[in-house]
Amino acid sequence: MAADRVRASFAKQRVMTTIGATLERVEPGEVTIAMPPNPALTQQHGYLHAGIIATIADSACGYAALSLMPDDAAVLSIEFKTNMLARAEGERFIARGRVIKPGRTIMVCDATVHAVRDGSEKLIATMTGTMMVVQGRGISD
Amino acid sequence: MAADRVRASFAKQRVMTTIGATLERVEPGEVTIAMPPNPALTQQHGYLHAGIIATIADSACGYAALSLMPDDAAVLSIEFKTNMLARAEGERFIARGRVIKPGRTIMVCDATVHAVRDGSEKLIATMTGTMMVVQGRGISD
Amino acid sequence: MAADRVRASFAKQRVMTTIGATLERVEPGEVTIAMPPNPALTQQHGYLHAGIIATIADSACGYAALSLMPDDAAVLSIEFKTNMLARAEGERFIARGRVIKPGRTIMVCDATVHAVRDGSEKLIATMTGTMMVVQGRGISD
Amino acid sequence: MAADRVRASFAKQRVMTTIGATLERVEPGEVTIAMPPNPALTQQHGYLHAGIIATIADSACGYAALSLMPDDAAVLSIEFKTNMLARAEGERFIARGRVIKPGRTIMVCDATVHAVRDGSEKLIATMTGTMMVVQGRGISD
Repeated sequence: MAADRVRASFAKQRVMTTIGATLERVEPGEVTIAMPPNPALTQQHGYLHAGIIATIADSACGYAALSLMPDDAAVLSIEFKTNMLARAEGERFIARGRVIKPGRTIMVCDATVHAVRDGSEKLIATMTGTMMVVQGRGISD
Repeated sequence: MAADRVRASFAKQRVMTTIGATLERVEPGEVTIAMPPNPALTQQHGYLHAGIIATIADSACGYAALSLMPDDAAVLSIEFKTNMLARAEGERFIARGRVIKPGRTIMVCDATVHAVRDGSEKLIATMTGTMMVVQGRGISD
Repeated sequence: MAADRVRASFAKQRVMTTIGATLERVEPGEVTIAMPPNPALTQQHGYLHAGIIATIADSACGYAALSLMPDDAAVLSIEFKTNMLARAEGERFIARGRVIKPGRTIMVCDATVHAVRDGSEKLIATMTGTMMVVQGRGISD
Repeated sequence: MAADRVRASFAKQRVMTTIGATLERVEPGEVTIAMPPNPALTQQHGYLHAGIIATIADSACGYAALSLMPDDAAVLSIEFKTNMLARAEGERFIARGRVIKPGRTIMVCDATVHAVRDGSEKLIATMTGTMMVVQGRGISD
């Protein structure tokens, strides 16, 4: 099942454990990843570093893509572009990735990242990413 | 001195300490950041996660920009786009950022990331980023 | 009125006349531009060139931003990123831009481009763009 | 010969004729395209529209990629990101594209666009683009 594959692969992304990120939801073509704030991952003004935001957004995109791939395929991020829209501060950060164009070789995805503050969500970043479907290299995640 | 300011701000980016990144070189408009491989920061195939590569590339861009800013200005990443060109594996990763268009409000930067393998460098990622010059908010880094 | 300003500025974009593009809709923070297919604007396989798609998407983003700016401000595209999702062929192309993050200095926008084929719309491209609010240079569009 | 293929394909891009663009140079992995200023292609302030700059930059990237592809392959732009660095005004515009990462399926390219003013070149835009190698669809350009 695609969701199981995504969960198994996510568990192998050691960076996710390191930053405290968890896989919240996996549907065909859609994945949600969340993480708590962490002072050890901040930039100079005390907010989460843009690269860490990109880390969860990229994984959300990649796993949204993997969820639609054949069982013997692996996912590879070719490129992504992210805009930072507001300070990355809050009680929790939520990256939601989805496939906007599935394909046999290429899947195009986008993601939003929201910060939860006082219980409500604020959009802090967007991403568009291009993911490659890699087959025949003996990897399948 | 601009280099001192950059060094002081870099020291405040706690994520840099967490991932083991060091500021190798600061010149006007050019900054080099390096980091070692780290199994705790890998994706599912054992390579450095693309978001971590983006983390050092974004800081290299941001500090290249800050090095050209007035003393009372702070730097803010508005957006970046990164292409992953090769597997992020090696003995060491080196991000070199430079300002390609300085400006009063906006600075456009690019960065390369190389992996050192067996002593030679391989280009593994590129970034283009747009940095904002923030003044009058009581921050200066 | 913001819509009038956008219409007046659009009328000055001579490239829009040249490619046959028309301003279909202006709301605060949202602009729609349409154009017909045109063999004179095609790439080697007979589809609309990606740069022409980017032309209408960029103007849709820019004018969405301008619609939210003060009367004495002008809009400047700093950067955009576009993904081509499907062949640009159809009876008509529709670019819809909207502001996803308004700001005093920077506005972040996204756009979709659809091709109309047999009366139904197909998503063929997406764009994310960063627009600058330019004041004090004697231009206001 | 790769250069002949690129020249033949460029000649089929009708938009290039329409905007007056010419193929100035083709080397393996590197292509230069130039165009004159043209009031019919301007934005509201009288400068060349960013989308037209993107048009020549994208073709320069695409043909740089095609120059390295097998004879039976065609090139497709998946995505590009462009930064506008200065006003697009001058006596002539020159887009130089090159492959920074060749590949069997994907080629990553970058491009610069310079404006020639009073005989000297000024960098006005950069692009990074991802090109796909398309085989088996009966097209070869």
